[in-house]
Amino acid sequence: MPTLRIALAQVNSTVGDIRGNAASVRRWSREAADAGAHLVAFPEMMLTGYPIEDLVFRNSFVEASRQGLRDLAAGLAADGLGELAVVVGYVDADGPPAISSDAAPGSGRRDASALLHRGEVVATYYKHHLPNYGVFDEDRYFEPGDTLTVVRLGGVDVALTVCEDIWQAGGPFTAARRAGVSLVVNINASPYELNKDDVRLALVQRRAVEAGAAVAFVNMVGGQDELVFDGDSMIVSETGELLARTGQFGEELLVHDLDLDPRASEPGPSALKIDRVATGVTLAPPADTRRGGIAERLSDEAEIWSALVLGLRDYVNKNRFPSVIFGLSGGIDSAVVAAIAVDALGPERVVGVSLPSGFSSDHSKDDAADLAKRTGLDYRTEPIQAMVDAFLANMSLSGLAVENLQARVRGVILMALSNQEGHLVLTTGNKSELAVGYSTLYGDSVGGFNPLKDVPKTMVWQLARWRNTQPGTPPIPENSITKAPSAELRPDQKDSDSLPDYEILDPIIKGYVDRDLGRDELIAAGNDPALVDRTLRMIDLAEYKRRQSAPGTKISGKAFGRDRRLPITNLFREGV
Amino acid sequence: MPTLRIALAQVNSTVGDIRGNAASVRRWSREAADAGAHLVAFPEMMLTGYPIEDLVFRNSFVEASRQGLRDLAAGLAADGLGELAVVVGYVDADGPPAISSDAAPGSGRRDASALLHRGEVVATYYKHHLPNYGVFDEDRYFEPGDTLTVVRLGGVDVALTVCEDIWQAGGPFTAARRAGVSLVVNINASPYELNKDDVRLALVQRRAVEAGAAVAFVNMVGGQDELVFDGDSMIVSETGELLARTGQFGEELLVHDLDLDPRASEPGPSALKIDRVATGVTLAPPADTRRGGIAERLSDEAEIWSALVLGLRDYVNKNRFPSVIFGLSGGIDSAVVAAIAVDALGPERVVGVSLPSGFSSDHSKDDAADLAKRTGLDYRTEPIQAMVDAFLANMSLSGLAVENLQARVRGVILMALSNQEGHLVLTTGNKSELAVGYSTLYGDSVGGFNPLKDVPKTMVWQLARWRNTQPGTPPIPENSITKAPSAELRPDQKDSDSLPDYEILDPIIKGYVDRDLGRDELIAAGNDPALVDRTLRMIDLAEYKRRQSAPGTKISGKAFGRDRRLPITNLFREGV
Repeated sequence: MPTLRIALAQVNSTVGDIRGNAASVRRWSREAADAGAHLVAFPEMMLTGYPIEDLVFRNSFVEASRQGLRDLAAGLAADGLGELAVVVGYVDADGPPAISSDAAPGSGRRDASALLHRGEVVATYYKHHLPNYGVFDEDRYFEPGDTLTVVRLGGVDVALTVCEDIWQAGGPFTAARRAGVSLVVNINASPYELNKDDVRLALVQRRAVEAGAAVAFVNMVGGQDELVFDGDSMIVSETGELLARTGQFGEELLVHDLDLDPRASEPGPSALKIDRVATGVTLAPPADTRRGGIAERLSDEAEIWSALVLGLRDYVNKNRFPSVIFGLSGGIDSAVVAAIAVDALGPERVVGVSLPSGFSSDHSKDDAADLAKRTGLDYRTEPIQAMVDAFLANMSLSGLAVENLQARVRGVILMALSNQEGHLVLTTGNKSELAVGYSTLYGDSVGGFNPLKDVPKTMVWQLARWRNTQPGTPPIPENSITKAPSAELRPDQKDSDSLPDYEILDPIIKGYVDRDLGRDELIAAGNDPALVDRTLRMIDLAEYKRRQSAPGTKISGKAFGRDRRLPITNLFREGV
Repeated sequence: MPTLRIALAQVNSTVGDIRGNAASVRRWSREAADAGAHLVAFPEMMLTGYPIEDLVFRNSFVEASRQGLRDLAAGLAADGLGELAVVVGYVDADGPPAISSDAAPGSGRRDASALLHRGEVVATYYKHHLPNYGVFDEDRYFEPGDTLTVVRLGGVDVALTVCEDIWQAGGPFTAARRAGVSLVVNINASPYELNKDDVRLALVQRRAVEAGAAVAFVNMVGGQDELVFDGDSMIVSETGELLARTGQFGEELLVHDLDLDPRASEPGPSALKIDRVATGVTLAPPADTRRGGIAERLSDEAEIWSALVLGLRDYVNKNRFPSVIFGLSGGIDSAVVAAIAVDALGPERVVGVSLPSGFSSDHSKDDAADLAKRTGLDYRTEPIQAMVDAFLANMSLSGLAVENLQARVRGVILMALSNQEGHLVLTTGNKSELAVGYSTLYGDSVGGFNPLKDVPKTMVWQLARWRNTQPGTPPIPENSITKAPSAELRPDQKDSDSLPDYEILDPIIKGYVDRDLGRDELIAAGNDPALVDRTLRMIDLAEYKRRQSAPGTKISGKAFGRDRRLPITNLFREGV
């Protein structure tokens, strides 16, 4: 029985940075070769980053990906790594020359996987199942492949598949059974979601049994705008046994010896054609034995914290910001953002600004200063009252307009410091506030990235308590955790003046936003009817605040907005 | 040969306002019946509005649409309109009871057309071709139908189709030929785009010949967030002759007598099954003759102006804002926005605020005042220097930070007036500025709607000149049109200090943004290489400004952002 020493390169690629991503493939391929691997697999769209959104409509980008793949094959050979089989994701298009800009969207573009060997692109596979739900829009971008690519490596047949192919029964994995493969390599850009790792394992196991073959699942790691990829790569046997598994949120090379029986093809229906490719890959028997090991799972809090830290770090670094800045109020939200930022970037790249008004309590200022001392971040104070007074002296404002004015003056100060010194401004509003619109448009909502955007308030507290139990100085002052939340925009203001308790509010938000439940279903679930009506109305009306960027009437073939969807973080701009 | 008197109801429906939209169907059906029509056709998704985006995932919404359809049929009969055949678009789902919230996205939801008669839903058709490009995401939302519905009306066969069905050859229109129909009714929510009316006519003609049947094309009119639907409904004979056509941008009932030969079915392949439905509809011969007439086409400028006026009017009214407010600088952009706003809402609902600084020229203030006098809008002056000085006295700012500070103080003033008095703030930056990021984030970009968001600067001037030639007082001061554009954020500043001339810039933006051309293609088209590099870099880097609403790491099943796409304008919130 031949032994395949397989390496799964769970690595971090950057959207648009084709050169940098290719360099990463060469670096990790060297590690895989040094570990004696016969084959190393990289994630989906490794070469281009993922998701590239409407960049795929730019022919120059697709051509850069295709050329980048050929250059990578040659580069690996030049590095002396030609004998290593390298599976890597990239974007392809049907046939040179460049497809027309005027072609129907998506037509001819492929989410592809290639096998590189001895300086050549030996085989390619086009993703068959294209996800078009949740965060995915792949029907917009790609044409599905209809052929399963099976490569013969030293007498064993291996099928190439991509991501969503593994989420649906009856497709490439059934075709793999028909083709009699011993291993399916599934390369992924599978975004993080709480507890998704549990779903993934069961899925990979099911699909291995369907194919009657071992499955090697390799996932990307890293942040891209709103998405974080958590890794969680794994190898499962043809009986569904978990053989090896990486951790989450870090780059890692998993190396594992797989004993692979050659298998006979099996008659029966298949939705895909099968294309068999011979390769010169040999499987020299390894001198020793490598077992990848199975990494321990994280607690929910550790998982979410790691996702938030990685998401912020990659947003800041991949967009090349030197540092971040935000208002430090002494409240729980900005305290948790500060702790995340310090974990992501180190205290020397984090600026916290206390922005006290006449309504700011002493404990607010004390708690902010305490946090600064605990974390070591750059702490400053910019009192806002003089600027607020200048507006009040020149305009007749009252009530909500005065409350919002204070938040907006804070926004202007933070943006002025950003313009003057180059920091990225962070927003610190949590998902609960964002949902019901409990924030000031162009005030506390000012900022280029919001670490808590998808974290409900009750989870913010939970994360704070968890983080304080970790090794080292607890970063978050106990008082920030225990005191009643307040915006401090008028005397003795409390969140509870305007909102239900967060323990009551958060489940309604979860039902309405995350699960699309309607009013009657939420009431049937035991929520107070009047509260449900009030909350749903707040959530619906806050839609324009969550959007901020003003809509405007479309008149052209391509308007900014719905029409054109581009990654913010995109280093292809270096080479346009 | 039977004569069908058909009425096309080119009307304005509102997303989420199922009750209001049903009332509109009953009102216009009365008009059609009074005109002696046998059949009246309403646009795609008339009952729910279009596009409803992720609202379709809420079962309560889908159920409200299904129930609304049955109620509408009963209501029409109660109005004494039971004998009129009414074709109307709505959202359906496969079978009661409500489909599960946990079903795969889009599964079982249908973009549907129904024929109502004598108080009943007599026939339904599910859209076959689902567009998933540009502004459309229908693969995300709907399952395609696979059956062409053919209804028999007084001895003549009529096929029901929806929108995109007409954009592709070989689908429902070939099936209609096979079925031997005399007429295809195609109901639309086809968004406006400059010169799209020319494309539409040729398309409808081509498809009529393909089907060998007359085609009745009815389109929605009205604004929904970034989209405007322009109407342009038409009737084309089976030989492709244009018989009748409405104007654009207004509600209208087109009534036309069609002499329809019964046709034999034709053997041959078809991608759709055919479902024949008998109806009790009779075609009593009309006593007179009605010809719908062919409306004249608009000039490009008139077309765009009408789109911008309608888009703004519907955004303001459907979201129930009493009035709009914006900074009136004396420059061309705010002058054109003012003229659009006054045309859309009348001068009494428009507030223009002059916000002079120490750098504002006299001619700026004079031009703003002149425009106010010409249009009759509510004109005010709020000098900004005292507030700017308060920031400068308390912070050490220089250069760009000081320039941006002025724009941000203006934003704070406009938002304070909005909070105090209830106006919607309008942004006035044009597409060219937005493209290259020549604006201040949270400064002049503040606002809930931007009429010029998709209008390049060169087109802004063109529109201003055109509007001044129309009947009545020319609204825009000549000086606002002819002077060199300036942000007036430092002494003697001109746009041309930072940007190429707009005559050079706009074609590069059009190539890169609208046509997805790459650097080399833009240079090959004759643009200066250094200028291309500089411009593309500005466009790429401005992506975060165009987005404004800060991204944040997704951790849940449904994060705000990519995951959840809802209309801002949505009156379903009234009934959650």
